[in-house]
Formats: sequence, structure tokens, C-alpha cells
Amino acid sequence: MTWSPAVESLVRELSRLPGVGRRSAARLAHHILRVPREDALRLAQSIQEARQRVHPCPRCGNYAETDLCHVCSDPRRDAGLVTVLEKPSDISAFESTGRFRGLYHVLGALLSPLDGVGPDEMNLASLEARLARGEVRELVLATPASTEGDATALYIQKLAAPHGVPVTRLARGLPVGGELEYSDSLTVLRAFEGRTPA
Amino acid sequence: MTWSPAVESLVRELSRLPGVGRRSAARLAHHILRVPREDALRLAQSIQEARQRVHPCPRCGNYAETDLCHVCSDPRRDAGLVTVLEKPSDISAFESTGRFRGLYHVLGALLSPLDGVGPDEMNLASLEARLARGEVRELVLATPASTEGDATALYIQKLAAPHGVPVTRLARGLPVGGELEYSDSLTVLRAFEGRTPA
Repeated sequence: MTWSPAVESLVRELSRLPGVGRRSAARLAHHILRVPREDALRLAQSIQEARQRVHPCPRCGNYAETDLCHVCSDPRRDAGLVTVLEKPSDISAFESTGRFRGLYHVLGALLSPLDGVGPDEMNLASLEARLARGEVRELVLATPASTEGDATALYIQKLAAPHGVPVTRLARGLPVGGELEYSDSLTVLRAFEGRTPA
Repeated sequence: MTWSPAVESLVRELSRLPGVGRRSAARLAHHILRVPREDALRLAQSIQEARQRVHPCPRCGNYAETDLCHVCSDPRRDAGLVTVLEKPSDISAFESTGRFRGLYHVLGALLSPLDGVGPDEMNLASLEARLARGEVRELVLATPASTEGDATALYIQKLAAPHGVPVTRLARGLPVGGELEYSDSLTVLRAFEGRTPA
């Protein structure tokens, strides 16, 4: 052991964070031990408070502190347009456009039978409830372009069919500013398949 | 604001960590909100406990939880051989050799008049006390090869002179496995200046 027990256990806990190896964890620990005590304690407190206050929004699965999340409880949002996402962090990509005025539905996981993730492990019961209540006019699927993302999209399409709710998916194609020359072949193929009238 | 207040404040506190931008902070926050609650709380607790239990060793300035640090309180270490370092994290580089059996002295800062760091901002009073007690046989300077590191080394050399304690510095030269072709010119120069009989 290189450090005293409390420092060692701080390094160990920090190295559990994603993308943080033992060396980075040691660097973070030294920082935490060097900054003013109140700064370090504020970090600890913000972790505790986030875990105490934040719960999944019962309607959409986003982070919520009040009853519904801040998107679902905003009366100016269009409750009929619902974008389905994998995780709460995907919401910020949508919100950053500043143009999407609908609501979200966070699945929490993608269908992956090989990893033991079936429909029951996803936030689908509340999605069915939303569809059954007839409040959804269009369901936009924003699951990633992967095997799991595609399987999930297909599953939700079938789920929505009996409710007669139109389901759309995000366009696949060349990113804005992306050069054809440097694009991967699958992206070029999707852009070709999804070509639109000029 | 993209997130609810508790999530936002968690992201803000995490982004104060060194090398953690807003995007990485958001990723860490999502991780903290997704892992089992006890894992998140254990991280918070390890931060609090480290700040409560760890104090600078009164002898050497290393992290300590008991009276002296775990190096100073080890009776098998050679108390006459003292390596002077900038920060506690430098100790692990020395300890990882498994061959250094002396003690340390952590300065906590390097002499840098332009940044307002003078001798009083460094852990020097306890170094003088160690020298005055006659317990030091050799002082090894391991401050970095920078303007501040060199100025600090020079200052400590003068500090040690009246006590008649021999002062040495770590060798500068080519790192083990380092190729001459790819070494910077200053390293090559130092290696040439410090050449030893073959």
C-alpha cells in the first residue's frame, strides 16, 4: 500500500468511475485532498443529494426531483410528440437544438437478449400506458444505430401498432459539415437510401 | 438548464476536478446516478473521510492519519536519508522502486516569487528542525527540472549548508529504454554533462 487507508479507499472509489484508471484516480484524490475543505465536502454532498433527491420521472423516466421531471411538468411542451431515447443523457442532445418542443420517453436500456436485457428491463410499461391514454400523436424513435438500437426500435414499433400511433425514426445520413470522402461506408449507404428530392 | 437542480449541481462540482470538462462531468454524473445507491454513497463518504482523517505528517508533510505518516512511523526506514519532494503524490514514484528505504520531506510547493510562493509558503520550518536535530545524514533533492524546481533546490542547499548535511540531486539523463534519437536536447545535454566512467 502506497497511501494511508483513507487515501487508498478514496483512490479505489474514484477509480470505479468510467474512464478513470488508477493513475487518474490518484490525481483526482490528490486534488480533493489539496483544495479547501469546503470544496471537497461540497462535492461529496452533491453526490449524496443527487442520489437522495433524483428519481426517475414516473411518466417518461428522465431525472426528476419534483413529482414529474422538468420537461414533463412544462405546460408549454407538446405532449403529443414523444421522442424515445435510451438514457437521460441523450435528452441534452435534443434539448440543445432548442427546437424540439415535445416530450421524451427514456427506456433506460436497449433490447439485448444476449446480455439478459429483455422488454421487462426497459421502461416500457409506462410507454404503453402513455399510448393507451391516447395522449401520443407521434412517436419518434431515437435509439442508436446499432443491433440493440434497431431491435429496440422494431419492438417499440410493434408495441405502438395496436394503438394506431405513427412511429418515425431519426434520419440517418451525413452529419452536417461531414465530408463524403471521410465518411464510413454505412453512413454513406444510409444517406443514399434516405435521399430526398432536391 | 438541461438538468434538474441536483443533477446540475453534481455536474458543476464534478467539472471542478482537474481534467474534467463539462461533458465528462455529465458522463460521471450519469454514472453516479445509475450505479447502485450504496456505490454512489460510498464515493461521497470516501471523500468526506479522507478530508476528515488525513492531515499533513508533522515530520515530513506526507498524508498522515495517525500521528506520523506510515513512512515516518515505520521503524525499519533509514531516518538519516531524506528525499525532498514537491508533493505527496511524488512519493509513490519513489516507493514503487521498492528500493528506497529512507524517509521523505514534502515541500507542498516550489519556490516561485512570480506566483507569490516564497519560502514561507513551503514546508521548510519542519525541514530545518529535522536538520537542526542532527537526524539527517544526506538530503536528496528530487524537485523537478524546472526553473521553480532548480530555484527550490538551490534554496534548500543553502538552508542545509550551516548544518553540514551533504545535499545530492537526482541524476538527470536518458530514461531507461529512451532512445537518443528521440530525446530532447536538454536531456541529452544533461546526460552528457553527467557522464560516468564506463
